[in-house]
Amino acid sequence: MATITDPIRRPAGPSPEALARRYARIRALSEALAAPLSDADATAQSMPDASPAKWHLAHVSWFFESFVLRDHLPGYRLFDDRWPYLFNSYYEAEGPRHARPQRGLLTRPSLDEVLAYRAAVDAAMLDAMPLLAERCGELIELGLNHEQQHQELLLTDLKHLLSCNPLGPAVWPAGPALRACADEAPPVGWREGPAGLVEIGDRGGDFAFDNERPVHKVHLTPFALADRLVTNGDWLRFIADGGYATAGLWLSDGWAWVRQEGIASPLHWRRASDGWEQFSLSGWQPLDLAAPVAHISFYEADAFAGWAGARLPTEQEWEAVARSQDPSGGVQLDEAGPVAPQAEAPGEGSSLFGNVWQWTGSAYRPYPRFRAAAGAVGEYNGKFMSGQFVLKGGSCATPRGHARASYRNFFYPQQRWQFTGLRLAKDL
Amino acid sequence: MATITDPIRRPAGPSPEALARRYARIRALSEALAAPLSDADATAQSMPDASPAKWHLAHVSWFFESFVLRDHLPGYRLFDDRWPYLFNSYYEAEGPRHARPQRGLLTRPSLDEVLAYRAAVDAAMLDAMPLLAERCGELIELGLNHEQQHQELLLTDLKHLLSCNPLGPAVWPAGPALRACADEAPPVGWREGPAGLVEIGDRGGDFAFDNERPVHKVHLTPFALADRLVTNGDWLRFIADGGYATAGLWLSDGWAWVRQEGIASPLHWRRASDGWEQFSLSGWQPLDLAAPVAHISFYEADAFAGWAGARLPTEQEWEAVARSQDPSGGVQLDEAGPVAPQAEAPGEGSSLFGNVWQWTGSAYRPYPRFRAAAGAVGEYNGKFMSGQFVLKGGSCATPRGHARASYRNFFYPQQRWQFTGLRLAKDL
Amino acid sequence: MATITDPIRRPAGPSPEALARRYARIRALSEALAAPLSDADATAQSMPDASPAKWHLAHVSWFFESFVLRDHLPGYRLFDDRWPYLFNSYYEAEGPRHARPQRGLLTRPSLDEVLAYRAAVDAAMLDAMPLLAERCGELIELGLNHEQQHQELLLTDLKHLLSCNPLGPAVWPAGPALRACADEAPPVGWREGPAGLVEIGDRGGDFAFDNERPVHKVHLTPFALADRLVTNGDWLRFIADGGYATAGLWLSDGWAWVRQEGIASPLHWRRASDGWEQFSLSGWQPLDLAAPVAHISFYEADAFAGWAGARLPTEQEWEAVARSQDPSGGVQLDEAGPVAPQAEAPGEGSSLFGNVWQWTGSAYRPYPRFRAAAGAVGEYNGKFMSGQFVLKGGSCATPRGHARASYRNFFYPQQRWQFTGLRLAKDL
Amino acid sequence: MATITDPIRRPAGPSPEALARRYARIRALSEALAAPLSDADATAQSMPDASPAKWHLAHVSWFFESFVLRDHLPGYRLFDDRWPYLFNSYYEAEGPRHARPQRGLLTRPSLDEVLAYRAAVDAAMLDAMPLLAERCGELIELGLNHEQQHQELLLTDLKHLLSCNPLGPAVWPAGPALRACADEAPPVGWREGPAGLVEIGDRGGDFAFDNERPVHKVHLTPFALADRLVTNGDWLRFIADGGYATAGLWLSDGWAWVRQEGIASPLHWRRASDGWEQFSLSGWQPLDLAAPVAHISFYEADAFAGWAGARLPTEQEWEAVARSQDPSGGVQLDEAGPVAPQAEAPGEGSSLFGNVWQWTGSAYRPYPRFRAAAGAVGEYNGKFMSGQFVLKGGSCATPRGHARASYRNFFYPQQRWQFTGLRLAKDL
Repeated sequence: MATITDPIRRPAGPSPEALARRYARIRALSEALAAPLSDADATAQSMPDASPAKWHLAHVSWFFESFVLRDHLPGYRLFDDRWPYLFNSYYEAEGPRHARPQRGLLTRPSLDEVLAYRAAVDAAMLDAMPLLAERCGELIELGLNHEQQHQELLLTDLKHLLSCNPLGPAVWPAGPALRACADEAPPVGWREGPAGLVEIGDRGGDFAFDNERPVHKVHLTPFALADRLVTNGDWLRFIADGGYATAGLWLSDGWAWVRQEGIASPLHWRRASDGWEQFSLSGWQPLDLAAPVAHISFYEADAFAGWAGARLPTEQEWEAVARSQDPSGGVQLDEAGPVAPQAEAPGEGSSLFGNVWQWTGSAYRPYPRFRAAAGAVGEYNGKFMSGQFVLKGGSCATPRGHARASYRNFFYPQQRWQFTGLRLAKDL
Repeated sequence: MATITDPIRRPAGPSPEALARRYARIRALSEALAAPLSDADATAQSMPDASPAKWHLAHVSWFFESFVLRDHLPGYRLFDDRWPYLFNSYYEAEGPRHARPQRGLLTRPSLDEVLAYRAAVDAAMLDAMPLLAERCGELIELGLNHEQQHQELLLTDLKHLLSCNPLGPAVWPAGPALRACADEAPPVGWREGPAGLVEIGDRGGDFAFDNERPVHKVHLTPFALADRLVTNGDWLRFIADGGYATAGLWLSDGWAWVRQEGIASPLHWRRASDGWEQFSLSGWQPLDLAAPVAHISFYEADAFAGWAGARLPTEQEWEAVARSQDPSGGVQLDEAGPVAPQAEAPGEGSSLFGNVWQWTGSAYRPYPRFRAAAGAVGEYNGKFMSGQFVLKGGSCATPRGHARASYRNFFYPQQRWQFTGLRLAKDL
Repeated sequence: MATITDPIRRPAGPSPEALARRYARIRALSEALAAPLSDADATAQSMPDASPAKWHLAHVSWFFESFVLRDHLPGYRLFDDRWPYLFNSYYEAEGPRHARPQRGLLTRPSLDEVLAYRAAVDAAMLDAMPLLAERCGELIELGLNHEQQHQELLLTDLKHLLSCNPLGPAVWPAGPALRACADEAPPVGWREGPAGLVEIGDRGGDFAFDNERPVHKVHLTPFALADRLVTNGDWLRFIADGGYATAGLWLSDGWAWVRQEGIASPLHWRRASDGWEQFSLSGWQPLDLAAPVAHISFYEADAFAGWAGARLPTEQEWEAVARSQDPSGGVQLDEAGPVAPQAEAPGEGSSLFGNVWQWTGSAYRPYPRFRAAAGAVGEYNGKFMSGQFVLKGGSCATPRGHARASYRNFFYPQQRWQFTGLRLAKDL
Repeated sequence: MATITDPIRRPAGPSPEALARRYARIRALSEALAAPLSDADATAQSMPDASPAKWHLAHVSWFFESFVLRDHLPGYRLFDDRWPYLFNSYYEAEGPRHARPQRGLLTRPSLDEVLAYRAAVDAAMLDAMPLLAERCGELIELGLNHEQQHQELLLTDLKHLLSCNPLGPAVWPAGPALRACADEAPPVGWREGPAGLVEIGDRGGDFAFDNERPVHKVHLTPFALADRLVTNGDWLRFIADGGYATAGLWLSDGWAWVRQEGIASPLHWRRASDGWEQFSLSGWQPLDLAAPVAHISFYEADAFAGWAGARLPTEQEWEAVARSQDPSGGVQLDEAGPVAPQAEAPGEGSSLFGNVWQWTGSAYRPYPRFRAAAGAVGEYNGKFMSGQFVLKGGSCATPRGHARASYRNFFYPQQRWQFTGLRLAKDL
């Protein structure tokens, strides 16, 4: 992989010192997130979609070790030459790898050994940063963004794992926002978005993934976005109105999914004697009616929107509105702690970003003239462009600074273990 | 279902006499297609995706009986009040129905009884046509287009069924076009399409499905379409070059499908001692190198396009070019007989229509401001708008006159028992 | 397959004329059973366990054609050399074959063609019988017993197929015994069986399968058999007492089966507005409380026996008692018609044979010194000796004359589409 | 559960002191076996058939806590009243429980917490032993035998888990017996067994499970057992002779299993550049040709026996011969360490016991007049009496002193993660 120009174009990068500080800060957050975990907590895998915390910690290090140190630092010796087989995720060009559904069987190496791996990679990276920053600063930036994505996955995978434990363990004590709240969010207001020809996609300058490029024009018909996210309180009304039992509200695939899986509420909800509870990284908690609904599938989001007389926004509509906002606003991840969506104050000043990823009605497909990066990192985004839907905006588990208006997250329409919610749209 | 205005808007319909003639002609073709079949041929179902010929014949009649006669002809009595349970396909609003994968177990009613049902429905329809044409001509037109869709499915389902029989039975003797052909198609030429803002969707006037509306603008970047379809000869080169064994060519879902299903050629192909053969409605035949490749999945189409240094067209690109063409051109279905794709003469005069449905790179999603029809017929198209891809152009099994530029066919990316092929596109 | 001595030892066979008469009579019954069926009825397959009627008719003919005509009649030419691939059931030594779950897709050859095949095989067999009877009378006898087994399967497979049709079609009008019957069977009486050392297995003389040999000694502890079969009325009490909801009554595998499949009654039962109905070859009929329960699995039989404070007999216990009875007694198949279990008069004179196959507590394993026959027919019985349980006694669908005390039928413990029931046993 | 008389009849039990010593010794072995494991090692579950080491350690303690302390020690308070839900295995009478395939998700409680649970149960047991030994010494003995069974499972489950790790971790360094051995075992000799009427089953006196009773007579025909186990060297000849590719050697269910699972060698074997290796608790090791073959299924054992011109012994034949031997002979488990089958010296003095469990040809069914114990412990054995086969003799992972001639182990015919092998038998 000689040169990486396409995916991580960056006209003028930060200084080696700034990059090293950024590297150290982001790497440290991963370890802080894993700090409360036992070796067993960090090893178990609750479903094929999820990965063990230990695996996340190692995989992101493998990324730096393979694509930066091995490929660009002459004489670098692998920490353990058997580990790439274990910690390659899906890069076909990097050779065969451990089967994804079996990641939870890797009791060795231990969490301590993985932390030692991280320390060794960090030492090598920081030692070599003056040289490396010049030769492959873009790759390092890609690796850091990659690690931030896995920080979010580490949290949602961990939440899913613990939710499978009848003891309902807590990782962190509940923060104030998780206290039950009888108050509901105010009614939805609508903000008109830009219509006609608009520009979509990354304009260059700062880091962006290859799938956000190239910038291009789309034509929008008049529309408006809701000024707040759909809340748990809204969702209770959908349930009470028979939303999960009304075939006519659902896409055909969605209805089949509801019937086959026996879906009757968002993931991580359960009925308690005195109302609904939701599982969190602080264990089971009373449902906060004013907080945004999370852990819903695209199918549920679509059915809800139809029930509410509205629809999902397209990714272009959402981006066209978000472009003028500060992407680091709203509820996002600042430090290790009790991550959860929180009630927001709607209205003029409220942010489109944070709290929950917002399902759009847009299938995840390439932009016109999209080109995947050359080499193994070209498998990062492009090969997933079928069957999935785009989500926008970041969540309470997205490291602050990682999201932006052109960011395209994507999941299959039935997946819901991420912090996924929705914001309504309508035609004008 | 009081009024149907949205889905089948038709400013000025044909005269009752013209509609009756059209009704009789289309209904007769269904029976002609089934004429060579035994009761058993017409009853068996080779997979859940397919339906028995007998079921198609009955289901399209149930459509007329339910939505026209029962709903609009006072005093009409059902032919058999147990049959709607058998012959409703997927209309949730019409109540419960026989499980799709069990359609092949309906040895009763017999083919003769189903033909009697058709005759009874036809008699009632034609008797009442003067009245019905006025009150619900649009519904009748919808029913006729619906029947044409099932004519195509009847042929492809039948082809699949017979392909499962080790005897390789023929329904019709091979036509001249199916003879082996050593010659190959000429190299691909490219036709530039319109760029900038273009109008997409049905402009009204003649019949169109709800999913083709409303007309709207999209912005296209400069592109070109190939002047011919990809052929069997082209596909042999893809195979010879290891196309099915090269992970980097495939979407991630596509590669998983190739591996799990052991895919190594289009459907209905087999190796014979002296080359490849393909199964047809005339039994196994030598592969015609100059004929368009058929029975490929979206995944295969996408992988081939990448291998060829090109890409799939978007549905908007295809439609923008096709709009100026006669949609009744090319190889389409005129009468019962040995339906199969045929070698075409590329170049200026060649048609974008016919031969094989062309996979596009567009996920099947609603147009801006799309509204499904009210009532049960509103389930016709809208509820399938997830997970599928759009195909354009009609095939050798599409009744001539049924296709048009704005027509949106859709299938899941792994499905390939239809006459599905591809035409390449590229950026300019 | 030069000589077949082991499996069908027959000291002195019947005359060629007698064998020919027997051949003609048995073959004719198969055709009489299929006479009411349409081509479609005879082609469809309702589940992998079942086969189409047409397939049964052809397969038993393939058996004669392969193992008698082809192997023993010099110069014989196959009726169609592509058909052995279609109609071989499971004989690995005979080469590859059509996949069992796909038998229902063989719409060709037609029922008429299969009947022509039968006629051709019969003509060849009867022509050659004087010669063949001498050279391979034992094989012919095996073929006739084989055909009788398939006569029973044809009936139970057909019953299952029609039960899947919401129209509930009838093949024959209901006989008098199928009328609803308010009366119940009298209480169970007990007959003591022989204890100590007893002889089990075929003593030779008449035809027997290889799995009934050799005769050997077993030691029995004192026991008694019920003087009647468990009835539908008995079964209703089991249901009313929560039998299907009481884990403690069930084998572990059985309980898993009940839970996974949602089992709550015998197969072919349904609740109607005024009580239970059972499906029969005469369509849906009111449940006859005095008739033996049928269509239960081994798991259900075992759970019922425990609930009733009794147990299943072993196959040796059953055989030790049955040995002194006439095996052609009881309700068995005499001619084509409305086959169904019927209420019996219990007591001294009642037969252990007929009505329903009786599940025993004995796993189907080889007798001491069992030897399978040489050649392909050696696959007849021996290779199925794992995972199945033995049933004794024959049923209403067993051709009279086919059963005997040493006869070992066998099915998997969850299978219940045969006429399977039970007779209780207890320790003394 | 008022009285337990049937399952654990023990005319005169050991003194409380002796029982306490035995209790302490057996409990300590469990902890010694788990001592080399990390929290993660002890938590992971490699397949639904297996359980985590931590779960085994807790489950056997739950057994004592529930059936002894809770039921018989007035005023006993549960260690944690949420844990019975986690650590009940399959006792329906004890209420609902954590799903078996999800045991590996129980990262909490930790291994340390489980060890604390063990300590607390041990303290309560030993405190109360003087009283408890009198009131329920039989239950305690049952609990100790139960714990010994789980010691064996802990080892085989752990071996399976580590075999799934590409790093092939070792728990203990290889013992001398695991060194590669070019020498082969000598040819098989045959020992004639007792024929005619023999007594089978537990005669009382010492502990036995309910499924070994009551003692009863069976009639055996003349037979002989091989004087040694089948070895890895023997198995290589079976492979070389095409054993896994010859349909005629296999039971029908076995052949389907071989084809579907792609079976071509025993479990835990792999080909290396210079011959075969087998996975052990000391990692991957060269195959020892003289050692008994292990990790084969019943299907494989049966196919091998047929290939070798022999057969599997029945459980009665095996027991009739073993009755006169010392059951504590042979290679069995004495202490924590590198457990593995070892080459044995065949001949007169060699033991029928130890090394590998020996598949018999006997389906696991109840003995005549078998009665399961009353109460929840009655689910221990009886409910598994369908679909499984009996194994005899104990293995290298069976705690010495646990096995006896009447002992009936049982597994499904496809299972092979235990130390399962075979000894041939033949008719005389």
